[in-house]
Amino acid sequence: MKSQRNSLLLSDGETTALVDAVADIAKAYWLSLPERRTYPATSGAETEALLTRSWSEEGIGPAVFESFGPIADRSRPAGDRFFGYVFGSGEPVSAVSELLVAALNQNVTSWRSSPAATTIERTVISWLADAIGCPGLSGSLCGGGSTANLMALAIAREAKCSANENGSGGGIVYCSKEVHFSIPKAMALLGLGRKNLRLIETDDALRMQPDLLHRAITDDRAAGLMPIAVIATTGTVVSGAIDPVEEIAAIAREQDLWLHVDGAYGGLAALAKPEYFAGLSLADSVSIDAHKWLYQPVDCGCLLYRDRNAARRAFSQQADYVRVLNEDPIESFVFFDESIELTRRFRALKLWMSLQYHGRAAFRAAIEQDLANAQLLARKIEEHPELELFAPVSLSAVCFGHRDKDNEALLRRLIARGRVYLSNASFGGRFTLRACFVNHRATPQSVDLIVSEVIDAANEIND
Amino acid sequence: MKSQRNSLLLSDGETTALVDAVADIAKAYWLSLPERRTYPATSGAETEALLTRSWSEEGIGPAVFESFGPIADRSRPAGDRFFGYVFGSGEPVSAVSELLVAALNQNVTSWRSSPAATTIERTVISWLADAIGCPGLSGSLCGGGSTANLMALAIAREAKCSANENGSGGGIVYCSKEVHFSIPKAMALLGLGRKNLRLIETDDALRMQPDLLHRAITDDRAAGLMPIAVIATTGTVVSGAIDPVEEIAAIAREQDLWLHVDGAYGGLAALAKPEYFAGLSLADSVSIDAHKWLYQPVDCGCLLYRDRNAARRAFSQQADYVRVLNEDPIESFVFFDESIELTRRFRALKLWMSLQYHGRAAFRAAIEQDLANAQLLARKIEEHPELELFAPVSLSAVCFGHRDKDNEALLRRLIARGRVYLSNASFGGRFTLRACFVNHRATPQSVDLIVSEVIDAANEIND
Repeated sequence: MKSQRNSLLLSDGETTALVDAVADIAKAYWLSLPERRTYPATSGAETEALLTRSWSEEGIGPAVFESFGPIADRSRPAGDRFFGYVFGSGEPVSAVSELLVAALNQNVTSWRSSPAATTIERTVISWLADAIGCPGLSGSLCGGGSTANLMALAIAREAKCSANENGSGGGIVYCSKEVHFSIPKAMALLGLGRKNLRLIETDDALRMQPDLLHRAITDDRAAGLMPIAVIATTGTVVSGAIDPVEEIAAIAREQDLWLHVDGAYGGLAALAKPEYFAGLSLADSVSIDAHKWLYQPVDCGCLLYRDRNAARRAFSQQADYVRVLNEDPIESFVFFDESIELTRRFRALKLWMSLQYHGRAAFRAAIEQDLANAQLLARKIEEHPELELFAPVSLSAVCFGHRDKDNEALLRRLIARGRVYLSNASFGGRFTLRACFVNHRATPQSVDLIVSEVIDAANEIND
Repeated sequence: MKSQRNSLLLSDGETTALVDAVADIAKAYWLSLPERRTYPATSGAETEALLTRSWSEEGIGPAVFESFGPIADRSRPAGDRFFGYVFGSGEPVSAVSELLVAALNQNVTSWRSSPAATTIERTVISWLADAIGCPGLSGSLCGGGSTANLMALAIAREAKCSANENGSGGGIVYCSKEVHFSIPKAMALLGLGRKNLRLIETDDALRMQPDLLHRAITDDRAAGLMPIAVIATTGTVVSGAIDPVEEIAAIAREQDLWLHVDGAYGGLAALAKPEYFAGLSLADSVSIDAHKWLYQPVDCGCLLYRDRNAARRAFSQQADYVRVLNEDPIESFVFFDESIELTRRFRALKLWMSLQYHGRAAFRAAIEQDLANAQLLARKIEEHPELELFAPVSLSAVCFGHRDKDNEALLRRLIARGRVYLSNASFGGRFTLRACFVNHRATPQSVDLIVSEVIDAANEIND
């Protein structure tokens, strides 16, 4: 029970005991990761029965943390055997830093409101820009790729067909048909309209075809429409294909279009393989996700851009109650004039801690390991008589399936076995299993486990 | 130094030591709060010199956490003497839960990806809806009021003048001239255009005037324009004024307009004072911020809405790689079909822990204390010969100033003294000091401190 009723105040002793108790829970959780099922044995009915309740009038005090065990047991751990979607593995130095973020409780709106946090965010932004070979870009951290892509298109729209004041008057955007769904979602939200997104056909390696891009722009201009932006993807969400950014950039420059690169999945692999990402530095804006290929726990997205004034034209408003009473160029820095959010948490602290704790070489090595694991898995699939590779492996996503079995049933079975987690996608209507390595805990043995689990699951289902 | 070079892996012993070390830092920080300056003694040049560096090739290991002290010393603590903006005081039970959020590292996209987290988020959403007297509303947690207001207007736009497919074709939105700047920002982003936002005049208590709202709508219809939504504010950001929601709702219903209530600041005070918020349950959507008046650390915003199908029409896309392989109504629940984000962190866990730890009565009492503190401060200002109240106190924001001094200079001096933190605003071009109580650590003694600090600062500046 609580010591003081009807008060939120904790004594120093209660605070200390609280932190210690939660630290013990976190330690036990991390140490339990290797033993955990990769998907919980639960159901919708069971989670609702267990976790649906009303907010009680009286507090229950520290006993509330007893609910953590049942919650963890009904959660999908992002541990050493998780290869679903594109989801980083939650590096613990970064994760523990979230306790400090919450204790400091900074509102990183501006230098004025949060001096250290603002300077640190600008510092880690420069690290991320350097890491992908684009030194000098500005930017900010955000919730993830969807927000970063939305902001990029908002900046592009305002730069090319000003709409903030009078409303959207159209504007055509180009991307490959393998684009992430956050792009059509952003087109819809921004009032540009999904129908004004042109999905350019891809080649055999699932990369946008620049000649078809050029033709589409030319056709639209001939029809009196207004092309405004091209989106290249470096690491498509399904297969990891990397669009030919250099050729696309040349077209964008010639046509005076904004070039945004969606590198949410793949961009940070430039730290290890800069040669895969030629032309990235020609982009006007780049989305990257540190909670993907820098292994940070969510959320830690990022938008980088070349022209801060373009970002300010898209996002700046005037309001006296947030007016900065300062003329100093550092002290007058304001994030909300360059991004969607006003209240912003101190996401940069976990990057600051994690990236310096381990150093750049360790992250580069982990990315190289992921790339090697994906190649190893592709090789084992090609060598296996029952399995088939469904797409080229450009980065660390491996799309494959069983030659003879219903792969959807196989995946359900594999997930239910709880020893390894894969997700799904489709190519041309064909259901595919998908293993994606953005996991600093994965090893070559993980690759063997994926193959053996797929075969075991296949043997357990009917044809 | 790190024990293993070029690897991100920590041993169990390193993980345990890491958590213990960070727990010690957090404990020491919380215990130091009462002694800390309310604004750090630093400058832009100093933070840059200290915190700008490159990302080193080799890791420095646990030594990186030695940077926390200098960071904390250059941060503005949201402690017992912070009354700036509308910023909650970072309740520690909620804050420590962020360590568990990061350890679990759930991606709360859907029940399929995160069973417990999805069920818990839906549970706490029901608590928040109940708390403000709107049982049955659906919704989701988000980064803050700016995102919640943006989502609300996106839903309203799609409901009243479908634009997702073909682009924005206009649509007029109404709000009071005291509206938060996130509303014009959302108008710009959504392609509706800031010029299509009508700022309705307010009465002496700074509340929207319903007769003027009605006239503006009628005028726009007569001009062939398309009214789509009205935004009422329950707790304006400057003075805390509460628009007359019931009368506004009647107009919105009669005119078939979407009614959004921006309750980011004040909405949750309905837990303590439901009588202030008559008509709130008539809204189609409501923004509330648990990181404001439920004292949670950032970020913890929330959008509630009546019609999940309207939210889905605004946000749903189709993509095979996130297709949910499930027909069960609970297990097929998907947040990203009803909100902007795809990747979403487990914000609900901190509410789950904090709200149950303390109980509903404790939060109600804390809100009542804030309201009482604001009234006490207003009284002391009115009684003080040198001070003047600049606006009526509707909730917990108190706008005031010195009768004879330059209040901007006075505020600079007050902040530099470092004993109490206030922010600024303006009314009719007049600079005002502003104290806002959303602080569970504040007491009646805090009110005395505000008055004495303002007078002391006034005495230190030249006329």
